[in-house]
Formats: sequence, C-alpha cells, structure tokens
Amino acid sequence: MNHPIIFDTDPGVDDAQAIAIALAHPDIELLGLTTTYGNVDIATATHNALLLSELAGQRIPVAQGAAGPLVKTKYPAPAFIHGENGLGNIELPPVKGQAEATSAAQFIIDQVNARPGEISLVAVGPLGNLAAALQLDPGIVDKVKQVVIMGGSIKEGGNVTPVAEANIFNDPHAAFRVLTAGWPLTMVGLDATHRCVLRPADMDIIAVGQGRLGDILAGSYAFYSDFYRGALGIDGCCPHDSCALAWLLKPELFTTARGHLMVVTEGDAEGQTIFAPEGRPFIDARWSRTPLVDVCTGADGKAVVEWIVETLK
Amino acid sequence: MNHPIIFDTDPGVDDAQAIAIALAHPDIELLGLTTTYGNVDIATATHNALLLSELAGQRIPVAQGAAGPLVKTKYPAPAFIHGENGLGNIELPPVKGQAEATSAAQFIIDQVNARPGEISLVAVGPLGNLAAALQLDPGIVDKVKQVVIMGGSIKEGGNVTPVAEANIFNDPHAAFRVLTAGWPLTMVGLDATHRCVLRPADMDIIAVGQGRLGDILAGSYAFYSDFYRGALGIDGCCPHDSCALAWLLKPELFTTARGHLMVVTEGDAEGQTIFAPEGRPFIDARWSRTPLVDVCTGADGKAVVEWIVETLK
Ligand SMILES: [Ca+2]
Ligand SMILES: [Ca+2]
Repeated sequence: MNHPIIFDTDPGVDDAQAIAIALAHPDIELLGLTTTYGNVDIATATHNALLLSELAGQRIPVAQGAAGPLVKTKYPAPAFIHGENGLGNIELPPVKGQAEATSAAQFIIDQVNARPGEISLVAVGPLGNLAAALQLDPGIVDKVKQVVIMGGSIKEGGNVTPVAEANIFNDPHAAFRVLTAGWPLTMVGLDATHRCVLRPADMDIIAVGQGRLGDILAGSYAFYSDFYRGALGIDGCCPHDSCALAWLLKPELFTTARGHLMVVTEGDAEGQTIFAPEGRPFIDARWSRTPLVDVCTGADGKAVVEWIVETLK
Repeated sequence: MNHPIIFDTDPGVDDAQAIAIALAHPDIELLGLTTTYGNVDIATATHNALLLSELAGQRIPVAQGAAGPLVKTKYPAPAFIHGENGLGNIELPPVKGQAEATSAAQFIIDQVNARPGEISLVAVGPLGNLAAALQLDPGIVDKVKQVVIMGGSIKEGGNVTPVAEANIFNDPHAAFRVLTAGWPLTMVGLDATHRCVLRPADMDIIAVGQGRLGDILAGSYAFYSDFYRGALGIDGCCPHDSCALAWLLKPELFTTARGHLMVVTEGDAEGQTIFAPEGRPFIDARWSRTPLVDVCTGADGKAVVEWIVETLK
C-alpha cells in the first residue's frame, strides 16, 4: 500500500533516522519535508533536512517553517542531546539544494488540497507548522487522510519536565490546536516510544545498509547514545520519531486507546497531554469536550526496532 | 511503639474504616478527629466522626473544620459513592456527644504545641484544615513529628479527572500549601492505594470483629462496593484512607521515592500532583523548587489488606 506523506521534522538525531526510513521504505511516498525549530534552530533543521535527502540520493522538497513557539518564550535548543549541528557534532558535507520558496504551512496546504483524502501528515517536532496550516486553511481538517504525531505522554511521565514530553512542551499552544482540530489523529508518545530501544548492534547494521547517509546516522547516534547512557543509564536510544512511521505502516505493533486529548498550556503541568478514555465519566464534562483521537498506550518495542532495522539494513 | 496522631477526615466509607483502625490499633494514640467537607458536607462529616468513635465505645475529641475549598468553587459531595449520609445510606443510631468548641485548625495547633516533636498528622480528606493551621501558626512545621496524607497520584492517573485524585482536586490550593510547607511529609496516593483491594470476604471478618461499629463498616462497604463494581469493574474496594495508617505503622509494605512535589491549581490539570524525583534534572529548575518529601510509588497490596484485616478482626 502506498502512503503519501509530508514529514514535519526538527532534525535532530532521531529525526534523521526517521527521515532515512521515509526515504527508504517502498510503501512511503515522501512528498516533502517541512522543518521546524525544536531539537535545533530552524536554519539548522532546514539544512539537515536538505542534507539527509541528498545523501540518500534523492531530491525531496524541503519547506522551512516555525522558528519559535506560538506564544511561550523559546528555550535554547538542547545541544547536549543532539549536538550543536543537530547531528551529534559530526562533520557534515556541504548541501547543494535549497528550501522551497513557500513556507512549511503553505506547502502542507497546497499538497493536501491537491490530493484530498490521500495524504498523511507525520509530525515529529513541535507542532507550529501544523497549527499555522490549520489557521491559514481550516478546510484541511477534512482533506488529510490522517495525522500522526510523535509527542506527548499519558502515564509514562515526561522527558523535559516530570509530566511533559519535549515536542509538546516546546509549543503547547500549537499542540493544543493540532491535537484538538478534529481530524483523524494518532498520538505516538513516550508510552510507546520508551518501550523501544535501538542498541548499538542494531545501529551497526543500519550504518552498513545506508551508505553515506549511514555514516551520518551512526555518527550522530553515538553522540545521542552518550546522553542516554549518562542521563538515563540505557545502552541504546529510543527511536522516538521512527515510531511515528512504524505506527503508520505497522499499527498492529502498538496498543492504542480512543479518547479525548487535551494539552496543558500554562503552569507547572505546561506541555502535559491529558487523556480521557472514551466513555469514562469524570467529575465534569470538561474532560470530554475535545474531539476523539487515538493514543498509543504501548508498543511491542522489540518488533518495532526489528522493523526499523529491517527497513534500513 | 506509640504513635500519637490527629486524624483529619471527611467520613466517608473508607474514612470510617480508617477511623476504626485508628481507634483499634494498640500502637496508635488517637488524640482527636478533625473534620472537613469532601466525601460529605461538613455537618455530616462531624456527625459521622462523633458516631464512629461512640460506636467503638470511646470518647475522642472531634473538632470541626473546613466547609469548603480555600479558593475554587465547591463541587457537590459524591453521594453516589459514599451515600447521602456518607455511610452508604444505612440507618444510623443517634449521636450523643458534640464537637469541640475549637476549630479543627486550632485543635491541631494546640495539640502540636503541647507535645512538640511527638504528633503525626494523618490527613485523608481535602487539606483545608492543615492549610488553615499552617496559616495561623507556621511554627507547627517544625513541631509536628510528620505528616501523612492520603491523596494525589503520580503515574496512576486520577479518579475524578484523568490526572487528579479527589482529595487534592477538592482543594488544590490548600494541597499546594500543605505539600510544600517544608515539614516531614509522605504522600500516600493512588499509585499505592490502587494496589490494595479489600474483598467482601475480608469485610465479613471485619464486620464480626468490630461489633456495632462493624455493622456500619460492613453496611457502608456494601454500598461503596456497588460503585466499584459498576464504575471500575472491581469486586472489592480500595481502602484508600486506611493505607495512610498502614504507611504510618508498616512503611516497609510500601515503595517510596524522595523528591519535589507540586500541585496544579488551575486549568485542565487542576488537582494533579507533579513529582520530580530528587536529583533528576529537568529543563528548568522550576520543577525542583519545592521542599523534598516522600511519595509512595507502590505498595504490597495483599500485605496491606492483610494488615487492615488483622487490625480489625
Ligand atoms: Ca523530532
Ligand atoms: Ca477521606
């Protein structure tokens, strides 16, 4: 089955691996990469998106998007996780191409309107571009096939605050708009991605399989692994962003629940996703006011990692 | 070992069982019951506190406290869980005694100052009385032995909203004050209490063991069980409030973690407790600004229930 997608990304080490999957998988038709600040600043995100597709020998449109959050003050990019250049501070070859003249939001709108009902939006960074697209053209809600986002956490706790996952924390106001827009949406958050650990031996296979792109993936993975080993005591990395593509192609590897999703925009729970399972009564109808969506509550982590390695070997 | 305690309560079915434990256990010296609205209105709470100690053949001081939350608007008491009378709508004998002339907050202050370093405050309802005591006499922070509260949830999710436990939700502003006051404090929340299920067969033993009080405990339990069976599909009840006393006397039955606790007072996460484990870095020092406390992250549920039954048989 063919999946035409737009991949919205802030590359970023785990983004790079997911982009490699989007470029490599025969069932994915990658219409374009839209970029956002997040793991890196926006110029670096766009540079890396161009570079990664060029290294894979493909010319994929790259449209640049949000340089910062909708409302809140931007935190500095986490260079200690992804490196100053977003790819573990390894030396990178020059980029030949350049970004589209159009913005990320407009690119999304144009593509979705050109192929109504066909396109999946897969977003694995802060959600400013999808929020901007919704504001410019609310009609895309009924024209996308589906939206898959990597972000959020229900019971797993957060990774940048005790309760917030980084992508949602980076722009909670954008996330609230996107997660409650009323389009078919699946959230792939830490409850699923933390079940998946890609080990150094897995990365060795990917490095060999991906040629010049593989060198970048493996080199940046080594830097990212140091963070995981030091901060979390894990020998390996959670391939967060690749999990969104794994869900798109192999949803049977995940457990999901349907319900109402909210995003906290202010206060100490800022960036938290709140999930009210469908039909479960709470003290107030407030917690069921948002449209129904699907949320990943878990994953067969071993099978997801096998699928990633199989795709990139 | 003797544990002089003040038991702050909104009885309430599970409160009634905990009060029975406080009255029965040889290692607990019950100095008084302080009452709050919550499961029931304040007059009913005070009535039930008087009644339960009289049925146990004891004359325990009862001091009435908060009739509503500090800041937020009060929700109606959940009569579908605890009954209109707080004890499963079973018929109750008349009460002979009456409440102290002093308020719950003043009672706490007077007792703590009379026996500095000796008294444990065990609070199993909304936390308005402890908050009021702290406002009247901040010096009690250094004079209580410890504070044990039943309330909150870290990873378990909520019971009145997707993220909030009822006691904290009922008065999040009071809870913020109490949980961050800087006194030695342990939070026994849903992460622990949901591991404990008291079955009908356990209640049969308690009913026999507690005489006239046992009839009330068993009758109200039957009503409360209907709620658990219908809403949660559980054959039995979580003895939430008894768990706070179980922690006081048998802390080895629980797993705990030390860290910084916050309470969300506004927005969709209102009433949520946020826990930042000690030493774990987050994106901002904001999540480590509150004093260190202990939080129960789990419990040996079977052993806790055995301890309850053993105490009341
Ligand atoms: Ca990303
Ligand atoms: Ca209670």
